Amino acid sequence: MRDMDTMRARWERFFAPRSLAVVGASQDPSRIGGRPIAYSLKAGFAGRIYPINPKYDRIQGLKAWPSLAAVPEPVDVVVVAVGQSQVEQVIREGAGKVGGYVVFSAGYKETGEAGRLAEERLARLVADQGAVLLGPNCLGFIAADAGAYPTFTSGFEDVEPVRGGGVAIVTQSGAFGAYLLRLATERGIGASNWVSTGNEAGLTVADLIAYYAEDPGTRIICAYLEGVRDGPRFLEALERVDRAGKLLIVVKVGRTERGAQAARSHTGSLVGSDAAFDAALRGHRAVRAESVREMLELAEAAAIGGVPRGRRYGIVTVSGGAGILMADAALAAGLELPEMPPAVTEPVLARVPFAAPYNPVDITAQTINEPDLLASTLRAMVEHVDLDALAVFLSHVIAAPSLADTLVDAFRAVRERSDLPLHLVGFAPEAVRRRYRELNVLLVEDPAAAVALVAKLAAVADATGPSAATTGGEDPGAPATGEEWAVKAWLRDLGLPVPEGRRVGRPEDAAEAAAAVGFPVAVKLQGEGLLHKTEHGAVRLGLTGPEAVAAAAEALWALGERLGLEGPSLLIEAMAPPGEELLVSVRRDPVFGPLLIFGLGGIWTEVLRDVRTELASASEKRLAEGLRALRGAGVLLGARGGPSYDLDALARFLGRVGRVGAGLLSRDPDAMELELNPVRVSVDGIRILDAVLYRR
Amino acid sequence: MRDMDTMRARWERFFAPRSLAVVGASQDPSRIGGRPIAYSLKAGFAGRIYPINPKYDRIQGLKAWPSLAAVPEPVDVVVVAVGQSQVEQVIREGAGKVGGYVVFSAGYKETGEAGRLAEERLARLVADQGAVLLGPNCLGFIAADAGAYPTFTSGFEDVEPVRGGGVAIVTQSGAFGAYLLRLATERGIGASNWVSTGNEAGLTVADLIAYYAEDPGTRIICAYLEGVRDGPRFLEALERVDRAGKLLIVVKVGRTERGAQAARSHTGSLVGSDAAFDAALRGHRAVRAESVREMLELAEAAAIGGVPRGRRYGIVTVSGGAGILMADAALAAGLELPEMPPAVTEPVLARVPFAAPYNPVDITAQTINEPDLLASTLRAMVEHVDLDALAVFLSHVIAAPSLADTLVDAFRAVRERSDLPLHLVGFAPEAVRRRYRELNVLLVEDPAAAVALVAKLAAVADATGPSAATTGGEDPGAPATGEEWAVKAWLRDLGLPVPEGRRVGRPEDAAEAAAAVGFPVAVKLQGEGLLHKTEHGAVRLGLTGPEAVAAAAEALWALGERLGLEGPSLLIEAMAPPGEELLVSVRRDPVFGPLLIFGLGGIWTEVLRDVRTELASASEKRLAEGLRALRGAGVLLGARGGPSYDLDALARFLGRVGRVGAGLLSRDPDAMELELNPVRVSVDGIRILDAVLYRR
Repeated sequence: MRDMDTMRARWERFFAPRSLAVVGASQDPSRIGGRPIAYSLKAGFAGRIYPINPKYDRIQGLKAWPSLAAVPEPVDVVVVAVGQSQVEQVIREGAGKVGGYVVFSAGYKETGEAGRLAEERLARLVADQGAVLLGPNCLGFIAADAGAYPTFTSGFEDVEPVRGGGVAIVTQSGAFGAYLLRLATERGIGASNWVSTGNEAGLTVADLIAYYAEDPGTRIICAYLEGVRDGPRFLEALERVDRAGKLLIVVKVGRTERGAQAARSHTGSLVGSDAAFDAALRGHRAVRAESVREMLELAEAAAIGGVPRGRRYGIVTVSGGAGILMADAALAAGLELPEMPPAVTEPVLARVPFAAPYNPVDITAQTINEPDLLASTLRAMVEHVDLDALAVFLSHVIAAPSLADTLVDAFRAVRERSDLPLHLVGFAPEAVRRRYRELNVLLVEDPAAAVALVAKLAAVADATGPSAATTGGEDPGAPATGEEWAVKAWLRDLGLPVPEGRRVGRPEDAAEAAAAVGFPVAVKLQGEGLLHKTEHGAVRLGLTGPEAVAAAAEALWALGERLGLEGPSLLIEAMAPPGEELLVSVRRDPVFGPLLIFGLGGIWTEVLRDVRTELASASEKRLAEGLRALRGAGVLLGARGGPSYDLDALARFLGRVGRVGAGLLSRDPDAMELELNPVRVSVDGIRILDAVLYRR
Repeated sequence: MRDMDTMRARWERFFAPRSLAVVGASQDPSRIGGRPIAYSLKAGFAGRIYPINPKYDRIQGLKAWPSLAAVPEPVDVVVVAVGQSQVEQVIREGAGKVGGYVVFSAGYKETGEAGRLAEERLARLVADQGAVLLGPNCLGFIAADAGAYPTFTSGFEDVEPVRGGGVAIVTQSGAFGAYLLRLATERGIGASNWVSTGNEAGLTVADLIAYYAEDPGTRIICAYLEGVRDGPRFLEALERVDRAGKLLIVVKVGRTERGAQAARSHTGSLVGSDAAFDAALRGHRAVRAESVREMLELAEAAAIGGVPRGRRYGIVTVSGGAGILMADAALAAGLELPEMPPAVTEPVLARVPFAAPYNPVDITAQTINEPDLLASTLRAMVEHVDLDALAVFLSHVIAAPSLADTLVDAFRAVRERSDLPLHLVGFAPEAVRRRYRELNVLLVEDPAAAVALVAKLAAVADATGPSAATTGGEDPGAPATGEEWAVKAWLRDLGLPVPEGRRVGRPEDAAEAAAAVGFPVAVKLQGEGLLHKTEHGAVRLGLTGPEAVAAAAEALWALGERLGLEGPSLLIEAMAPPGEELLVSVRRDPVFGPLLIFGLGGIWTEVLRDVRTELASASEKRLAEGLRALRGAGVLLGARGGPSYDLDALARFLGRVGRVGAGLLSRDPDAMELELNPVRVSVDGIRILDAVLYRR
């Protein structure tokens, strides 16, 4: 991983440039080489612009230069808008004086092997200069606050982004990213920074998340991703978002397998598994939006109302129906509706005896006749109740000319007393909407959507930040082979709970070993490459005496011969007490490294795929949350009349397995997965009943 | 149930009135008694308006009348805008000449017992006249196409609904319903009919659904419901929607228990269980929207693009990213993406070799330079592929002045060849949007939302209509008692599969009975009121010989004595072969009548609540779909390496249980639930292992 702090100074020069050069500059403001100049001129870019094209003396009213080499001063950003074959020459000319390059040109990795090699050469050339590279095959970027538009998207011909709104959009897809910016602009969202990363030979989306996390003018980062190529860099970016207290909103495609395949063919990115991506986001100040619309709504809500600090939600309504609908949606989404104290309810009931001012606080349509009732109720709520967000359903009456001023005053009075996210649910024309926006009150038309925004943003309140990860793997050594007996011996040495057992090399020794272990025992055939022991009938359970053990040992030995097993042996183990069974696995993800995957056994994993994926470095707190988030968690908590197990102890066990597994995978590049299946959880502890190490 | 066809003529007079009277008329157009007159005048109501108020000679420029009695002609609609105490007098004056009454007045059922009695009197008075009653405690209705506005909602002071759009909105909540209408109007949805039903002493939402289903001017009905009071009437309305080929879109609150409680306190409605409501909608031309926004989007999509006839979905895109996102969402929502034939792919590849014109058909941003490529691709798709809906992602380029005409022409050419739902995903200002609307092409900004609309509407294609219900229950007689032995004897007589068994009155006779049944057997204690036999230890399974049976019989008899069981006996039954276990129950719903509830046993029901609720009259086809929709369906289909069972045979069994149970519940008003738990499904058939009848 490159040191982001070192890169930072270069990136600052690049994204807040004081000079721009456009190689392949065009007179035509609608051509690829013309747009960056036209847009920047129109936006009042205060720095110097160097149009470069040997055919002209002047371009779009500016002095033109014959080549980049001819430009006598340093240039912060060079836009490369020439054919692929000419790009390397341009870069060479910039050596020593250019802050960074925006390469529009296509014909690289996306076209095949020759393109991939050309892209590698390009990246090396730029890196050798200590310069920044955006692209190739990208749409460029905008820094609207500075008026810099090194981009050729057509999206700014008729509109200009809103400046100074504190929202940065970073996108892997240029065309789709441009659309996102256009929709944001239409909604009035201040997306003044926008970057399209294209092939990501240099800057990646992760870099840009890290950069904007620490940009003083940015509060919210919206990222559109098709894949993550460098998991650790992405994780570092998330930690920077946490440390800076910013909010990251991600849309990532590829939830379904077909979608993931399409993404792969589209970008050539290595797409990490979607579950691994979710595991990476979890616990950070990051939310995953399911759609572009949700992303924009979340960005708008966070920008205007702020991010709730928890799940305590207050609902005020003038319509019983809307109150029910919102309460329903809130509870279904995991929000809490605190009860209202007499300080809130009594003044309402004194004025409107048939009101139901609980939570939802239904102050009835009477409010339309007595708007000060709304004002006093809102004030009482923020003064007497510990709320993390407050929504008020007023429908289209907020637009009524006779009420508009009074209602705005009511919200102003609340805003003076509290900075909590305040959402007004109703319809109003733009003029009224603007007045609320000035008070940082978000106007939402749909009651359910208003609730969904709070529920989604409230999850960020759980962000545990960098502390979520432990200090990483330990070096646990490695088992002698991938067989059960060897993996278990290794686990036992590490202090992990494995049943008491003996391994014997001849069936004749089994009974004696069983006596030493203590009856009842299990006898299990061992041998290189023997998988799915139960299906092969290679396990005998609950044997209560020496005769039974001897008979089982002979039968299994014969089975081993039939299977042609190399180096057979027998494992004689103490039976474990009854309980519930889990599957626990540490698996290598090509992008995010070792993952810890766990779930209940049987139908839970086989039919319902009810497993949780976490980074192997996840904290015990997060693992305990993960256990509770299993759909089958009830089974561990006594749902079927069984005992309730100690989930914290189980989380500690999982945490240790994660560290041990991560250490193993990190020291042995051929080790692919350490699978413990089943792990038996019983009232007197945890036992690993089977274990295997899969190597490449 | 009233005969809806008889009522129809009265309703037609009421909802397309040629005369309006307003009792309690006001000079002030913003007062409750003033608005109906002011709105109707402004909207150009062509019929006569009779303002009634003894204090004035003229009201809002019209001749005023001292009383309803004084009006010399028949009146189609009388708006009653006076205090509750005067309402009955008004109704009496209208006898014989009034088509129907809109009663704004409150103070009825919602206030308590006296109000409830007043409401009953009001309903009887109106019914005795053969007139229609809307309300009391309602906001009235509008029939915008006729200019009739017998309503006092404030929503029409500054806007007028869109006429002639074929959308009717019916709502139980007046305030929320008015908001819904306002939002619809702001979106340009032609909601020209709108009705608020208030306390529903007369017309209910179900009546109005039935009415608008057969109204020639209506294509889409939007209903906002807090509860359904009369299940059969609601079901009849759904069947009328099916027969007329219309579309019903429902928002119903009360998904969570707390929401349902709030709804109850709010409206005094009997709220049927939410699962029963979903069961009622299923198989009809009805979709349940989760939010107001979704309702309006669905209405707009159905009004403009039409309702897809199936799930075959085509996606065309100029952005790979958007294509992935939409394909992902489509597959996750259960849509199909048919492969594209060479007739579609080859012309694209010939022009743009790096395109990926499969499905999503990615024609790349090249289209911006060659818009005829889009036109020819769309034409080829509708000519050569059997599609139910087609979406085209074009982003904000559709707004580009240089492309707008060409793109509209491309869509016009498609529209001339096909009437399939055609959705354009992108952003455009209103002027461009209108041009597409004229072609019945829906413009949607969010790619995921576009997919969701198609997926939700496509479910209507499965509507099986009235045939979904069988001819109802049979008269199956009744068991002698609710005990297992009696219920099983009754089920056996009906031909339902019950294990071979004998009942004995003394433990001494058990072994002989077992020999007659054939070993192995189960012995089960019987007795009035003995529930949860397994927990009491009152069942012994797998007994293989006479001694074991005798011992078990003695032990169970002693247990019966300890429990103080009335009329004990023993049931000796053949053991059933192994298999999977189901819970099957026929339960009385206060609103929708007998429901059939089924699910897999064990954790599936106990932990996961994975049960399906259907009307007991559901067809076998629907029950088979219900089985396949269980999350645990895989267990019945061999997911865990077990056998795959015959789900159609199981559906036939469920259908018979539904008919038998419905018949039993209908002949015995104290019978609440027939529970068969477990039912064992094995490779050689189905067996009811336990059965009980719960009576009130």
